[in-house]
Amino acid sequence: MAHDIARLEAYLAFAHRLADAAREVTLPLFRASEAIDKGEAGAFDPVTEADRGAERVMRALIESAYPEHGILGEEYGESPSRSGWTWTLDPVDGTRAFICGVPVWGTLIALAYEGVPVIGIIDQGYLDERYVGFPGGATATVRGATAPLKTRRCPSLSLATLAATDPGMFKGAETGGFEMVSRAARLTRYGLDCYGYAMLAAGRIDLVIESSLKPWDVQALYPIILGAGGVMMDWRGGPGYAARQVLAAGDEMLVEQSLVALRRAAD
Amino acid sequence: MAHDIARLEAYLAFAHRLADAAREVTLPLFRASEAIDKGEAGAFDPVTEADRGAERVMRALIESAYPEHGILGEEYGESPSRSGWTWTLDPVDGTRAFICGVPVWGTLIALAYEGVPVIGIIDQGYLDERYVGFPGGATATVRGATAPLKTRRCPSLSLATLAATDPGMFKGAETGGFEMVSRAARLTRYGLDCYGYAMLAAGRIDLVIESSLKPWDVQALYPIILGAGGVMMDWRGGPGYAARQVLAAGDEMLVEQSLVALRRAAD
Repeated sequence: MAHDIARLEAYLAFAHRLADAAREVTLPLFRASEAIDKGEAGAFDPVTEADRGAERVMRALIESAYPEHGILGEEYGESPSRSGWTWTLDPVDGTRAFICGVPVWGTLIALAYEGVPVIGIIDQGYLDERYVGFPGGATATVRGATAPLKTRRCPSLSLATLAATDPGMFKGAETGGFEMVSRAARLTRYGLDCYGYAMLAAGRIDLVIESSLKPWDVQALYPIILGAGGVMMDWRGGPGYAARQVLAAGDEMLVEQSLVALRRAAD
Repeated sequence: MAHDIARLEAYLAFAHRLADAAREVTLPLFRASEAIDKGEAGAFDPVTEADRGAERVMRALIESAYPEHGILGEEYGESPSRSGWTWTLDPVDGTRAFICGVPVWGTLIALAYEGVPVIGIIDQGYLDERYVGFPGGATATVRGATAPLKTRRCPSLSLATLAATDPGMFKGAETGGFEMVSRAARLTRYGLDCYGYAMLAAGRIDLVIESSLKPWDVQALYPIILGAGGVMMDWRGGPGYAARQVLAAGDEMLVEQSLVALRRAAD
């Protein structure tokens, strides 16, 4: 379906407002306390506060501006859509990174029409970096400077940099499939959550392979990867915007080489 | 040996100068090119340029200011000391992070007397963060604001956040030892290189367990961890400043619980 340009531009501007509002909640809570001693009863939990607070503020903005839009959020579940449009929100993707004080977590915001995401944002407020995808393109705004995002060419797995959040996200046969690709790749990097997809869109990583993902983990990534010239699919080669098992590549040449290993463990 | 305070203060100021000089080389090369296409002959390699360039500039400064001091650098090897004092330099620790555009790499600078490091710096220029350890203390300067570093209490492995750069750094029996600790810990985080030790000193991570390390990977960390109130040892419980297998903990209570698993794979 072709979308009305003016409408999409309004939605994109609104998506930026959501990201701004989420930053106001998450940033003061990142590294909030100098050191939280463990083992104390009723201890303050900054990541839960950030997650819930940022989702609440984004939901309130959407409900006020677009009451006919649906919302799917990690923390507060689903409000059905009465228009075909749905916002998918992950206020803090990468809670482990957040907890550890490492600025590779991000706020994920997607707008989908009938389940297909058309606008996506990865926002990393501590680094002041925002990665945005929309029909026909993708941009990064890094410390105030905006530039187009473009994946890089990489014709062979043996030259590729591969990323995944955690080796423990793969279960059963998935582990072997991932390891086959990892052994063939030039190097493998763990620990990046959504930031790995941002670096793929920016042409610094060639391949992200993950599993155990939820819709709010992946919906926002799809327009960014595609807008930057990459591909994102499930482990059978189908569309990647709702996949539990994801393969994202900057260069399409890597897809078949990776799927050979991953297909046998595909859902 | 008790060191002369005025001398140590002069060395500490000089260590900051080294870190400043390294930043001037590394920062312009981080994310230097928009996208380097793979498979091109004679491609520009920013991380190698950063590594070599930063070490050269630091070595030149040391040779000029303290010709009687030794230097051990990752890129250009060892110049023997004629005074007992030796600088150990890792211009880019975390080259994979650097390559991937992820700002958790760092410049490591240590000054040791007769092999025991007394001053250490982890510098992350892109984040504008510098972690410094010296006899009697440790500080972090984050975006211009300096504050003492203090590890947090964590009385039990079951409450602990564990970090390691890569599961692939463990070989043979080491893998099982690490996995025993990882299974007992509350969560495990990969992909941090020197930044994991910085976050341990800052009270955000409780435990770092690593192997396959070189002197330039560990010397700078030791004064920072100890100055922040933590411990750093090898997998037998001996001093950690020259270890290939490292255990760093914010709370001493975690040491014995971890060594039970690690000792059987200790060198």
